[in-house]
Formats: sequence, structure tokens, C-alpha cells
Amino acid sequence: MSTFTTQDEHYMRLAIEASREAVAEGNFPYGATLVSADGKVHVSRNNQVTSGDCTGHAEVVLVREVAQTLGAQALVGATVYASGEPCAMCSGAMFWAGVAHIVYAMPTRVINAVGGAPYLQPKTAEVLAGASRAVRVDGPLLEEEATAVLRDFMTKK
Amino acid sequence: MSTFTTQDEHYMRLAIEASREAVAEGNFPYGATLVSADGKVHVSRNNQVTSGDCTGHAEVVLVREVAQTLGAQALVGATVYASGEPCAMCSGAMFWAGVAHIVYAMPTRVINAVGGAPYLQPKTAEVLAGASRAVRVDGPLLEEEATAVLRDFMTKK
Repeated sequence: MSTFTTQDEHYMRLAIEASREAVAEGNFPYGATLVSADGKVHVSRNNQVTSGDCTGHAEVVLVREVAQTLGAQALVGATVYASGEPCAMCSGAMFWAGVAHIVYAMPTRVINAVGGAPYLQPKTAEVLAGASRAVRVDGPLLEEEATAVLRDFMTKK
Repeated sequence: MSTFTTQDEHYMRLAIEASREAVAEGNFPYGATLVSADGKVHVSRNNQVTSGDCTGHAEVVLVREVAQTLGAQALVGATVYASGEPCAMCSGAMFWAGVAHIVYAMPTRVINAVGGAPYLQPKTAEVLAGASRAVRVDGPLLEEEATAVLRDFMTKK
């Protein structure tokens, strides 16, 4: 069991706020916050509908935006706070980028139960098990706050 | 054990040829061929170095390029031939895109052994196990031809 700090909660709330903004823009309710090893912060949100690109999950958007704006080095050793436990695609993208630590709000089990199909099953830690570089994965943190956004999205859909 | 046709070999050779072109452009030795449900063909190659985007694996590039050029519908029900067994990121991206069938040349075990770190462990079929929609995964096909390109790349690196 992890102990989270008020700093962790702050960064996760930025990700959850981004998940609301994603919905307001016509996309899916997911956001992610990067905190680089030297303290730079970048927040991204899902854009898969408006971009017409199904790879536009918040974490993949984050990896691309950070590489373009702060430079790829800002991803190395970074922590990412994701409003939903990252799927296999996003877990892989963050691994290749050099992310060191992933913290999530809603677990995969909750995302799949509340959001329904389509869904993948593996948890982030399962995707990254046995990787050539260990990535720490912690969660859930602020699960209820993040799930409220997904529930609201599903109700209005 | 799958039985492959000369058509399968043809599409896989397009992917392997693309893996050579990727290296010639300064990228990693991977390529992928899409054959849509209505027979449209699109070939993509790794661009992660020249694009400065670590998500630029051949299959993710393919998902994005096809959505932009042929339209997202061309991915639904499609078969993708990949010169390397797709990693978790690429497996997830193709799942979200609606790809129905994945055929690979080099197995993950061979890619990791020949190419070395960084690497992820899950096989494509493990990433997609239990997904809300079944994706058929077959391989290896033309493993030696694809591995020769990776071996050559590693020798010259």
C-alpha cells in the first residue's frame, strides 16, 4: 500500500480536471499530469475524437506533447499521474519514453466496469512486468473523484 | 499452427522491405502492412528517431497514417502484417483502431534477444487476452528474413 502526499493529490487533481476538460471538448474523460525529474509540469488530455486518432489517449498525447515542447529528456525519470490506470498502449508509450513512476486514480477494473466495451484487460503493472527497466506503479489515488467524471460522461452519452 | 498463403508472404515481405527502408532513413528496423477488409493496402515504417517521437513504432505510425489517408474505417476488420511481433503499445493501438487480425514475423523473444534493451515482455496475444473484442494473432511468418534485417542493424549500430 502506498502513502500519497498532498503533492501527489495536487498533481492527480490536475489530471482529473483535465479529464473534465477533455469531455467539454468532445473527447473521452481522461487526463494525465507529467512531473519531470527536475520539477517541470505538463498536463494533457484525451483528444481521440477531435483528432480523429484513436491513439489520442491522455498519456500518449502527453508523451508526444512533452517531447515537442519540453524535449524528450523531460520524460526520462518522470512521474505521470493518470486519471485512469493506463492501458497497454499508454503503458508501453510511457515505458519507451523513459517514465519512471506511474500513479493512477481509477483502476482498470473500474474503468472497464463503468465505461464498458471496448476494453483491454491487462493492468499497467502486468504490461510492464519483466521489462528491461523497472517502472513503479501506484494507485488508486482519488479513485472516487476520477470515477465521478467517467460516470457523469457515461450518463450523458 | 497457422497455414500461411503466398498472399500472406507477399504482404509480410512488404513489411520487411519497409523495415529496411526505416533503417536507411535513420530509424529502427520495423515495418508494417495493412490490408483493409475491402482490400486496400498501406505500408508504414518506424519513424521514432527522425520524428523525435518514441511512439513512432511502425504499427502506431500505420494506425495514424491510415486514419488520415484512407479514413479510420479502413482499420476496422483489417489485417496487419508486422515485421516484429507488436509490443504492448502497438497491440493496444491496433486494438483501439479495430484491427481484427495481426500476423508477425519475428517473435518478441527473438526481438528482445537480438535487439536487447529496452524491451517489454508481453506477447501480443497476452496483451489482447480477455479484450472485449477478440483479435486473431498469428506468427511467426518469414521470421528469418525479418530477423536478418534486425541483426544487420545491430551489427552496424
